[in-house]
Amino acid sequence: MAENVKNYTVEGMTCGHCEMSVKEEVGEIAGISTVTASHETGQVSVAGEDFTDEQVAAAVEEAGYTVKA
Amino acid sequence: MAENVKNYTVEGMTCGHCEMSVKEEVGEIAGISTVTASHETGQVSVAGEDFTDEQVAAAVEEAGYTVKA
Repeated sequence: MAENVKNYTVEGMTCGHCEMSVKEEVGEIAGISTVTASHETGQVSVAGEDFTDEQVAAAVEEAGYTVKA
Repeated sequence: MAENVKNYTVEGMTCGHCEMSVKEEVGEIAGISTVTASHETGQVSVAGEDFTDEQVAAAVEEAGYTVKA
C-alpha cells in the first residue's frame, strides 16, 4: 500500500514541548513514518501507511491535546 | 547553613512542559532541594542552600527561558 499524508488541526499546543509530545505519541502508531507538528498553526501532518483518523485522534489525546473535527 | 527560599519571575513558559524543563534544569544546581514553577504566573520558587541568583538564571536560560530582572 502506498504511503499517504493526512493533515489534522490540533488544539492546545502552546510550545515546542507540546509539538514534541504529539510527535512522539502519534509516531508510535504502527505504519506511521513521519509526523510534523506546529504549535503556531496547530497543524499536525502525518505520513505513513494503513493508519486511521481514529488512531491519530487517540494518540493526540494521549499526549494531552485534541484533534479539531 | 540554613535553607532559604527565593522567588524569580521567568518569561516564556507557556505550559506544563515548560514548567518541567525549568524545574529539571534548576533542580540540578548543587544545594537546591525544591523547585516549583507556574506558567500561569511565571513564578519560579527555589529552596535550598548556597545557591546564587546567577546559577538560577543560567539554569533557566539553559532550559530556554529568561529570568526577568
